This record gives sequence, structure tokens and C-alpha cells, in this order.
Amino acid sequence: MSDVCNVALLGQKFMGRAHSNAYLKAAKFFNLPKLPVMHTIVGMDLIALAPFADRWGWKNYSTTWKDVVKNPEIHLVDVSTPNYMHAEQALAALAAGKHVACEKPMAHTLKDARAMRNAAVKSRRSRTFVWYNYRRCPAVALAHKLVKAGRLGRIYHVRAAYLQSWGGPETPLVWRFQKKYAGSGAHGDLNAHIVDMARFITGQEIVEVTGAIAETFVPERPLPGASGRGGIGAGGPARTRKGKSDVDDCVLFLARFAGGAVGSFEATRLATGNQNHNTIEINGEHGALKFGFEDMNLLWFYDAREERQTAGWRRIMCTSAGEHPYAGAWWPDAHILGYEHTFVNMVADMMAVLAGQEPIVPLPDFADAYETQRVLEAALLAARHRAAVKLSEIK
Amino acid sequence: MSDVCNVALLGQKFMGRAHSNAYLKAAKFFNLPKLPVMHTIVGMDLIALAPFADRWGWKNYSTTWKDVVKNPEIHLVDVSTPNYMHAEQALAALAAGKHVACEKPMAHTLKDARAMRNAAVKSRRSRTFVWYNYRRCPAVALAHKLVKAGRLGRIYHVRAAYLQSWGGPETPLVWRFQKKYAGSGAHGDLNAHIVDMARFITGQEIVEVTGAIAETFVPERPLPGASGRGGIGAGGPARTRKGKSDVDDCVLFLARFAGGAVGSFEATRLATGNQNHNTIEINGEHGALKFGFEDMNLLWFYDAREERQTAGWRRIMCTSAGEHPYAGAWWPDAHILGYEHTFVNMVADMMAVLAGQEPIVPLPDFADAYETQRVLEAALLAARHRAAVKLSEIK
Amino acid sequence: MSDVCNVALLGQKFMGRAHSNAYLKAAKFFNLPKLPVMHTIVGMDLIALAPFADRWGWKNYSTTWKDVVKNPEIHLVDVSTPNYMHAEQALAALAAGKHVACEKPMAHTLKDARAMRNAAVKSRRSRTFVWYNYRRCPAVALAHKLVKAGRLGRIYHVRAAYLQSWGGPETPLVWRFQKKYAGSGAHGDLNAHIVDMARFITGQEIVEVTGAIAETFVPERPLPGASGRGGIGAGGPARTRKGKSDVDDCVLFLARFAGGAVGSFEATRLATGNQNHNTIEINGEHGALKFGFEDMNLLWFYDAREERQTAGWRRIMCTSAGEHPYAGAWWPDAHILGYEHTFVNMVADMMAVLAGQEPIVPLPDFADAYETQRVLEAALLAARHRAAVKLSEIK
Amino acid sequence: MSDVCNVALLGQKFMGRAHSNAYLKAAKFFNLPKLPVMHTIVGMDLIALAPFADRWGWKNYSTTWKDVVKNPEIHLVDVSTPNYMHAEQALAALAAGKHVACEKPMAHTLKDARAMRNAAVKSRRSRTFVWYNYRRCPAVALAHKLVKAGRLGRIYHVRAAYLQSWGGPETPLVWRFQKKYAGSGAHGDLNAHIVDMARFITGQEIVEVTGAIAETFVPERPLPGASGRGGIGAGGPARTRKGKSDVDDCVLFLARFAGGAVGSFEATRLATGNQNHNTIEINGEHGALKFGFEDMNLLWFYDAREERQTAGWRRIMCTSAGEHPYAGAWWPDAHILGYEHTFVNMVADMMAVLAGQEPIVPLPDFADAYETQRVLEAALLAARHRAAVKLSEIK
Repeated sequence: MSDVCNVALLGQKFMGRAHSNAYLKAAKFFNLPKLPVMHTIVGMDLIALAPFADRWGWKNYSTTWKDVVKNPEIHLVDVSTPNYMHAEQALAALAAGKHVACEKPMAHTLKDARAMRNAAVKSRRSRTFVWYNYRRCPAVALAHKLVKAGRLGRIYHVRAAYLQSWGGPETPLVWRFQKKYAGSGAHGDLNAHIVDMARFITGQEIVEVTGAIAETFVPERPLPGASGRGGIGAGGPARTRKGKSDVDDCVLFLARFAGGAVGSFEATRLATGNQNHNTIEINGEHGALKFGFEDMNLLWFYDAREERQTAGWRRIMCTSAGEHPYAGAWWPDAHILGYEHTFVNMVADMMAVLAGQEPIVPLPDFADAYETQRVLEAALLAARHRAAVKLSEIK
Repeated sequence: MSDVCNVALLGQKFMGRAHSNAYLKAAKFFNLPKLPVMHTIVGMDLIALAPFADRWGWKNYSTTWKDVVKNPEIHLVDVSTPNYMHAEQALAALAAGKHVACEKPMAHTLKDARAMRNAAVKSRRSRTFVWYNYRRCPAVALAHKLVKAGRLGRIYHVRAAYLQSWGGPETPLVWRFQKKYAGSGAHGDLNAHIVDMARFITGQEIVEVTGAIAETFVPERPLPGASGRGGIGAGGPARTRKGKSDVDDCVLFLARFAGGAVGSFEATRLATGNQNHNTIEINGEHGALKFGFEDMNLLWFYDAREERQTAGWRRIMCTSAGEHPYAGAWWPDAHILGYEHTFVNMVADMMAVLAGQEPIVPLPDFADAYETQRVLEAALLAARHRAAVKLSEIK
Repeated sequence: MSDVCNVALLGQKFMGRAHSNAYLKAAKFFNLPKLPVMHTIVGMDLIALAPFADRWGWKNYSTTWKDVVKNPEIHLVDVSTPNYMHAEQALAALAAGKHVACEKPMAHTLKDARAMRNAAVKSRRSRTFVWYNYRRCPAVALAHKLVKAGRLGRIYHVRAAYLQSWGGPETPLVWRFQKKYAGSGAHGDLNAHIVDMARFITGQEIVEVTGAIAETFVPERPLPGASGRGGIGAGGPARTRKGKSDVDDCVLFLARFAGGAVGSFEATRLATGNQNHNTIEINGEHGALKFGFEDMNLLWFYDAREERQTAGWRRIMCTSAGEHPYAGAWWPDAHILGYEHTFVNMVADMMAVLAGQEPIVPLPDFADAYETQRVLEAALLAARHRAAVKLSEIK
Repeated sequence: MSDVCNVALLGQKFMGRAHSNAYLKAAKFFNLPKLPVMHTIVGMDLIALAPFADRWGWKNYSTTWKDVVKNPEIHLVDVSTPNYMHAEQALAALAAGKHVACEKPMAHTLKDARAMRNAAVKSRRSRTFVWYNYRRCPAVALAHKLVKAGRLGRIYHVRAAYLQSWGGPETPLVWRFQKKYAGSGAHGDLNAHIVDMARFITGQEIVEVTGAIAETFVPERPLPGASGRGGIGAGGPARTRKGKSDVDDCVLFLARFAGGAVGSFEATRLATGNQNHNTIEINGEHGALKFGFEDMNLLWFYDAREERQTAGWRRIMCTSAGEHPYAGAWWPDAHILGYEHTFVNMVADMMAVLAGQEPIVPLPDFADAYETQRVLEAALLAARHRAAVKLSEIK
């Protein structure tokens, strides 16, 4: 087994940058059993691609992903393109015998996701990963460990919300607002994360979506001009012209878990005042946990079995080497970590897995992430049918 | 018009105490146009009643509420008994031409609530009130005023939860866990408050409950022994004997508002770590508001139209005389108020209304509170039918 | 021994109102071994006095305190007048054999305070109290108990600040800004409280003030007009006329404690953004504590001896009956208390002491409060001399 | 002028790692006018050095700093060794005509710092920098800008504390506890940072240290064993043997600023419960600011001139591109930054200065940092003399 992992990264925008940084830093901070090598970056915008490759130290760049995923030098294909491209690219990479790390949500349709899951399950050689990076916040990983250790007992409640506010009426019609490119809006972008977090921390599957609301508050948006955000397939001339936004701005749903817990989920791009408010609270018989991404170094834990006089929510700063997941790789206590560290931690865990070792906490593969996709699908169905949908109805 | 208001209070438990304190204090802190006089306290537990009357300064006490509500000296009947008694007592008081202040929820069935609403509407002489005391937190009243002044613009989201944790498996089977006495569990007790708050602050009615979950996590509870909490109709001998708890421990639901906003509501007695976590957040086009009862003196406000460099959630300490509702009656800035002050503020407003004046912020009467009851009913139906319920279906 | 305690209250302003409310409520919420009776209110403003007496239920009122303190019916004289009057009134009351409860600071000069301490010590019959009400926040009382139980071990640090902001240049020259009436400014008003809290929680005396700053940022203030705050001895005609403010606007000092801890103290009326920010943090070998009055129901506790993985500041909501001091007298869990409750709790404890019982936590008498006065004096000396002052130099 | 900057980094421990990461990342995130090149790493521990160089991508490594600083290829010498080595190394680098970036505190004695300042001032060619990295938290930089823009008006108060807790009795005697290596303890390590921050944000010099306390709570510490932290000059055999810790564990002091403000400063390694609690609050006539490093993405701002009804501390998430300093280089809104980003931001600003451009906010050079050293010296003198020390007495 080689001790390097040649990576081909498809995508050079927001996630392209976050992943490049992660590949760059992982071996600086972790003692990795396998080194990620930044082999080839693939993008469609040739003018931006060469400088991007140069800046980040990618050895090669290309605009033809179909060739790259077949390149025998490549070990891992990282799919960080818009959602509608995931399936084709991931399937091609699997067919070529590569490991695949795919951005979330897995795909823009459940059918695509299912094909990816099936291909991954069939593959003997390939390992698959989905970039649910928030699992790798030390605080979220600690939450997972505490639940697993029985510190919460029977779980009663899961309460998750991912609130953003950048989707106001002035925000232009970028690909994220178009169903054909994105599949869904806030739902696939944000609910995907919190459904994964809830499943990861509780260790339980969702068995029913009991009710759901999907709403598009802003049905028309300005076409992106020169100053817009990206703008695949929407290169309109003037700001005053508008196009149809056909994805959800928010999706809320209620759910039941296999172990009997009930939960609520909400994703929105119109929660004024909240920029990246990704939160979860879990209440159990013996204790409770709270996490909010804007204070991502903290986990709040309530232990219902301790002496009542001094019982209270504990503010755990999850930065102690030897105590908290991933903390030993980084800085001294309370020298806080940020958003990008979750990706670096994930690269470290992927390299561990590819070297045959255990990750610090479990990584989602295509089969795991497919379960999240089923929940998202059930929520959309429940919203459409205005009625409960059992997960057993979603294949 | 008399400048005193003789009060008969029915109920001598938790709310009996909270209301007695409110009648005692209101005229000490407010300049009232009409003075509440603590005329008669009515209770069923005669042994406790005389000392209670003596302690709080009630001039008379009685165990026969039917006589008291007809006493010509009485102006206002305050119904603070368990939920199942509200309708009969309130209707009798209205029939006797009294003003009525009823604890929430109005009644243990929608039918009873409707009868109360109808009787109130028909009455020419009687004013009615329902004790939704949280409206009278200065911060909640300020929230109402800010929305009314257009500071939020179009409202997108309402997010309300009332989380408690005293309903664990060891908690005995007091009346609050029995449907015949309480009507419902956390739903009528806690969702009632946050539905009222949401309607009050937004000024919008709920038009649909799109989905709902009602769950009883603890179906059996120890029968209350000598050391239990009250225990109407459940005087079992030993702790080890158990009885059936047939109310919800939690109810979650999703809703749509008349103005297009979407909302989520959750009430539970099993949210470990949360003792009285009554919260609401509202996100609009131009701003947002957050309130949590455990920091009841604070309102958080985000103004999306201010200079972006310094925009942020503002922590407003709602204690400035002349600036914040009710604050002028109390103590200097940031000499904080507590739970009981909401009741005192409400007595002051009720006396204003009875004297023909305007309250500081609107008071809920039976017609108003009936709308809250309809929402609660719709939520229970939605939970039972596992499907959306329009409010137009609830008469 | 009589089971009632007839109270004469001297003062009808801010503290007159806070104490009246406390005498009114104490027996409603506590089972008292001795009942406070609101016998006589004494004030100088005769026009306001009768309505005040009527509103609060004082049986008598008077403008001649010298007669009242000798009235044989009176058991307890409560001195709530401006600081410069405390000594004369308290000494007269002690001479008449009364119990005395005096507002803080004890006196406007150390000499006066010493005379009061000496008279109290000599008295056989009289009990004395000083209204350091913040000791009776449940959270502060719990802090005292935790330190006493050894939960902090050796104490390293005390960090206390009392920050207000009402003393800007527009605030008129009321008595609190005049040395002849107030003795000092923020120092006696605010540092008095936090020095008492530090001594109370740690159980240690301050042995040295190592350095100090006293500053008057606003040396001239508008003379109070009709709309001003009170205005003893400063009844100027127009707002534009100014008078000299000769008290400190802030005093900061560093101190050493008998047990080896070091501490910092700061009181100011010009800490823009802070309205009543009365805070203390104590760091010890085995744990730490934090309290801030604006969240007065909370105590933050860090236990350095617990399992490190889940160690963190614990947010203790100090409202559980049976667990937290005073909580059992009030409302259910997290139905929060406010400013005024500290005074009610203190009346309950005073009545206990007068009935020969133990208070829930120790009450400061004149001898105890005199130690706080010595620290305040040492701080002023250190500021004046720009050098360290040992407490042994202050008699 | 070359468009690259060859860096020689002296030091391979904590700061060596933080700086390596900063040089690695700066050009990935910023468009730099001059590229830092990781030319040579210098360390004393040869066994660790080669792997360190390899891991971080340093082109060369060496154990002889004296040669390296004279290497004509080097443009910038980064001095990140223990404090006692700073002066010799920085002076040699300046003598060789290099730019110098020195870790803080500048030196372990004021005399050394003065020599460095003088050499820097005399040099025509060299630019100097001191790594006061916290200036480059976006929130701290914004605070500087708001004060400069007059948003606080006259400043009354500065309140700064840097609280850590890793210095308990079990912590071994590493170089940071030995005066000959470190110069001082918490004082030079932590007060240095907050004195710099206070000077930077207020734009005012400290003119007097009015009082100070320096304390060594733990005078003896275990000699570092194999498992200790570093351990220059203290290679004792067994844990049970102890050596003398002759630096301060904490230093507290009070100060006056040129513009009339008063301030307090505290640094400690024994503030149990606080791990990296680096905080500052500034109160002015028109507004106030608060910052705490453990929530480093936030600045709290109070505007005393806004409408009072909605005035309150504003929680500003300083992550908006185009609005907040440095934010545009990083991630979308509220995708938070961590400790290491302050170093990257500083490298970007240093490169700007070396290319003749303006930094985003001012960088401290040796002359600027020398003023901080003078304040630290004054505090130590004030502690020793137990009296006020004017800065004019410190040359």
C-alpha cells in the first residue's frame, strides 16, 4: 500500500478552496499514515484555474474531469462541483476504481443518490466519503462519544436548526436557487447537515417525517450581473431583469427516531440576524447536549445525575489535547479553532481510513449519507402531501 | 363607577398565590384608576384556606364558589382552579354579571372554551381576561410594539419553544397528568403560552397547522403520596403503585400564519437541562427579535437596515423608565424584574381596562384566547390525523 | 418575647420603597418566627409622606425621627436616609434600646462608622444589621456556602466590579454627588457592595490596599431643576447653572486578602453600556465561581477536580426549592427572582435573628460592616497617597 | 524591489509552528504584493529540526542562527525563541540589514528592549515588527477603527484581563517559570498582549502605573521529566524533585492614560476556569466596546447616542467581507476564524509594509512595542515599591 494518496479535486469555488486548504494543512498538523498529495485540480473556468492551481500548489490542472478520474495516478477523486454533477462524476470515479469523497448533499435527486450508494456498495476497492464536515468539530465529535457512552440515556428530544440570512430578495439568482442545478434550496444545503449531525450524535435513524413545510418566500430574483455570486447558467445582462427561483427558501419538518425520540429540523436562508447558526440540542433521560456552530469550540452538557445543588449546563471548551477529539493536533487550550479546521480534521480521518486505520469518529460513506438523503426526500414528500411519511416508504 | 374592584379569587395553589401577590402589589407600584380589593378567596381545602386568607390579607374565605360568584359585592371573579373547572365557574360568573379573569388555558375542551367565548361576547356588562402573563414581560411588550411599528417588515419565521424538564418518570401522577382534569399536558400548559405570545407579537393569526407530533413518553406514573404535588383525585397509598398518565408529555407542531410566515412550536416537560425555557424568535425582512424567559429582562433585536459594519443582535435591557413598557413602575435601570412582576403588570392593566382606560399593551379577552384554543385544537387534530389541518376547519 | 416586630422606617425615597415592599412581602412568602409590622414611616417631605404611608400600609407617619426612635412601641429602627444622617439616627436608636437596620454604606465618614460599631458592640439588647442586600441573592448565598464547604480550596484571585453608567455629564447634582451628604460617590455606593460580597463569599478579610485610583471625571454638574432626582440641598433655579461635584465618579483598587489571595475592585458610574453590572469572580485551587447581578438567578461554578473531558463552567439556575438558599420560599424552578427579592430575603433573615434563630446565611452587623468601611477608607487613602496602605493602619 | 521575501525563522516550538503555518497560508488567502518564502528554519533541537522543516516545507534548516541571519538570501528574520534570546538575535539581524519580526515580549529586560528599539530606529533599511497577533483579530481591528472614527468619544475606562489557568502547582518548571530565560511570568507573556491591545485600540499612551501587585503563588515546581513541556535548562530526573519558580504567577496593575482614562490590567496563570480568557472593555462618553478572545469573532459595541428604546450591546459577528477587517480574505459570513488566523493576517500585513503599502491596521514596530515594555517595567516597579510610578520615570 502506497503511503501517498494522489487527489484529484473537481471544483474550484467555495468548496474547492476549503478542500484545497484541508489537503494543504492536514499533514502539517496530524501525523498521517498516508499523505494527501495535491495532484490535479479540475474546473470549468480555465481563466481562473491556472492561478488557482498555482496559488494552492496543485501540481496539475485540467478542464476535462472525465479524463482525470481515469488517470491511473489518481487515488482519490474529490467531487466538489454543484449538486447536479455529483452522481455522474462519482459514478465515473467509482467505475475507474477510485476512492471518492463527495460534497454534500450527495446528489440533487434521490435516484442519483441511490445509484451512487449502490455503486459504492458493489465496489470492492473503493472507499467513499461524504463531506459532512460538522461531524468533525471537536464539540460534535465529543457529543457523539458522550451519547455512545450512555451519558444521555434514553433520548427524548432532538432539536436542530440551521439558520442563515443571505437569501433576501436582493440576492441574485445563482445556481443555488435553481432546481435543475441544486436539486433543492436550504433543504439540501442546510438540512442535510443537521440531519447528518442528528443521526451521527444520536446513533439513531429517523423512521418517520410526521409533518413538513417547504416555502419559497422569494419566487423571483435578479439575474446575476458581473458582480454576482458565480452564476452557472444565468448570465443575464442587467440587474433589473429577474428570473424564477424554484427552490425552497426554507424547509421545516418534524420527525420520529427509531429509539422513540421526537425531533424538529429547520433550514432557512431568511432567518434575519442569523448568519451561520447551525445548532442542535438533544435531551435525554440522564443528560442533555447543546451545540451551536457560531461558538463551535464549545459543547454544552447537562448531567442530570450529578448533585443537584451544583447541576447546570456545563460550557465545555473542547480544545484540550488528550481530552477532546482532534484537539491534540492543534493549539493549546482555548486557542480556538475555526470553520476550516473541520475539513482538515476530515482529511486526516480519510487518510486514516485509506491506510486501514480507524478514524477518530466515524466517517459517513455513501451508504450512510444515503440515509440522510432518504430523510430529506421524506421531508419534501411530507411537505407536498401535507401528511406524515414513513421512511419505510422511501426506498 | 366605583373606584374599587372587589375580587373573588377561586384557587389557592400555585396560581392562587401568584395572583394574590399581584393584587397585593399592583397599587403599591402603579397609580391605578381602580383599586383591587382582596375580598374573598375560595378553595376546597378548608384546612389550608383560613391560613392562606390570613397570610395574604383576603378579607373573607369560602369553600362554596357558587355562592361567591353571585355575591353582589364582588366585581371581578378570578378563575385559577384546575382547567376542567374553568368553564362552569366562568360561565356562572358571567351569568352573574361579573368581570372574569381566567387562568390559561381557557378550558380543558374546545367546546367549553367556545361556550365561554360566546357567553363573553353576549355579555354587555362583563369584561373578560385570560392570564397570559408573559405578554406583560416588558421585553415581550416591547417586541409587540416594535413589530407594530414596522421594525421587522414582512415576517418570514416564528420559532417558539417552551421547554421544561420536571416531567420525568419519577414525577407523581398529579392532576396535570390526567386528561379529565387537565385536558392536555404540556400542550395546554406551555404551548398555550407560546401560541399566545406568537399571535400577540406578530399580530397575525395562525391559519394552518401543517404537521404535529404529540407524545407521551411516560405512560405510567407513581400515584402521589403524602409528599406529592397536590394530587386531585389521585390519593394512592404507596409510591410504588402506579397510575396511567394519559396526557401528552410534549407536543410539537408546524404552522402557517395569515401574513405568510411559517412557524414551529414545541412544548415539553422532558427537555432535560431546561427548567423554564420559554423562548421565541421572529425573523422578518427588516429585522429580528429574540426573547427567552430565563433572561426575561432582555429583548434581543437585530436591525437589518442599520449600517452593516456595526450591525448585530442588540441586547436590550428592558428596564428603563420612560422607554420600556411597565419599567417606570418598578426599580432603576437593570435592577431586574422577575416572574411575579408579569402578574402585577397584568393586574394594573386589568384595572385600567375596568376603569375605561387603555392597557399598556393589549390584554387577551375570551374571544382572543379562544383563537389560541383553536390553534391548540388544530395541533392535536393534526397529530392524531398525521396530516395538515386548516384553522378554518376548527369552529 | 413578642412575636411581632414593630418597624420604624426612616426614609421614603428609593430605599424607603424597597424596604417597604420587603416588610410587606416577607411574611407572605416565608414562615416567619416574628412578624414585621409596618408601624411608622418617617420622612422630611410631608406632602409626599401621607400618600406614601397610605399606599404601603404604614400605620403611622411622622417627620420627627427623634421622637419616633424613642417610641416604646418600636422594636426595629430602619435607617434608610442619606449617608450623612446614618450615624446620628442609628446612635439615637441604639441609645433607645432599639434594634437597628442601617442602609449601606454605614456612614459617610469612618469616624461615624466607628462610633456606630462601638455603640452596637456595647449594647446588650440591640441587634444591628446593615442592608448589604446582594448577600441574599440565592446565587451569592450559594457561593458563600460552596466556598465554606471547601469547593474552591485555596483562593488565588478575587475580581469584582460594580459598573453603572448613569453618572454622565448631564446628570444633575443630586445629593449623591456631594461629599457633605454622601461621603463619597461610586465608592461608598458601589464598592461598598462588592467589598462586602468579597468578604462574605471568601470568608477572608482584606489586609492591604496595594494601590488605588479615585477619579472625578465630571467636576461640575447641572443644578437639579424640578424634574431632577430628589435634590437635597441643591434646589437651584435653572438647568444651565452648574455646581461642583466633589465625589469620585469611580474608584479602582487592588488588594490582598488574609489568606493570600489578591483582588481587584472597581466601582464607577461612567461605564457606558453597563447599567447595574455588579460582578464578582473568584478563582481557587479546586474551583472557581462567577456571579453577575444582571443575571442574578445564575451562579457559574467551575469544578477543577471533576473529569476533565466534561469539565466546564456550570450555569447553575439557583431556583430549586430544597437545593438553593431562599428558593423554597418563592416560585417553581427558573421562575426567576428579581432585585426586590434580595430585600425580602433579608427581612426574613432579620426576623429569624430577632427571634433567636439562625439566618439562612450570615447577616452583616455593625461590627462586620465596619470592616468593609475600613477597606473603603484604606482605598481612599491609597488613592490619595498613591501608595499601598495596610489595613492595620486603619483603626 | 523583489517580489519575494525570504524568511528565516528562529524557533521551532509553539510559535515556530504558529508562524510556519502563517507563512504557509498567507498567500493562499491574500493577494500579496510580496510572497513570503519559507527559506530557512533555525532550531537547537537537531533531532526534531529536520522533520519539522520537512513537514512545513522549509527549504533549509540550521542550528547556527548567527550564520543564518547573515545569509544574503534572507530578507526577514523572525525571532521566535525564548525571550532571553530576542535581543541578541534581533540586533544581529538588524546589523546584517535584515527586516526583523520578533515575538513578544520584545525582550526579557527593558535594557535589551531599549537596545533593540535604538537599533531599529537607527537602521535605514530595516523594518521591524513585533508579533502582537491579537491586534489582527478582525474584532480588535474593528475596535481600533471605531475608536479612531470617534464612536466612543472621550474614553473613561479601560478594563483588560488575560486569564489562564495552566500554572497550577503540578505544572513543571519549564523555561517560562524561570526569570533568567523568560524575564517575567504571566506579566511579559500575557500583560504584554493586553497593554498592546489597550494602546492600539485607544490610541493613547499610559502615563502612570498607579499601583500594582505581583505575586508568585507557586514558588516551587516539579522539575520537568520526559513528559514535561519543553524544559530548557531544567532537565531534572524525577518528578518529585522540585526547583524554584522565580517569576510572577500574576501581575495586576492600575493605570492612567494620556487622555485621562483610567485602566486596570490583570494577567495570571492561575485563574481556574479560564483557559485563554483575553478580554478588554472600553467605556467612553459616546459608546463602549468589549472583546473576549474565546469568542474572537465577536465585537460587542454599545452606541450611547442611538435611540434609547432599542439601545443595547450589539453582538457584531466580524466576518463580513467588505465590512470587517481581514474578513474578505477568508470564508463566508460567520464561518468563523480561529487563533491561527491572527498570525496569517499579520504576515499579510507585514508583506504589505515590506512592499511599501499600508497594512489593514497599524503594525507594532520595535519603537511602538518598546512603549509596551516601558509600561510593563513601570508595573513591576510599582509592585516592588508599593507606590505609583510615572512613565516619565522609565526611560
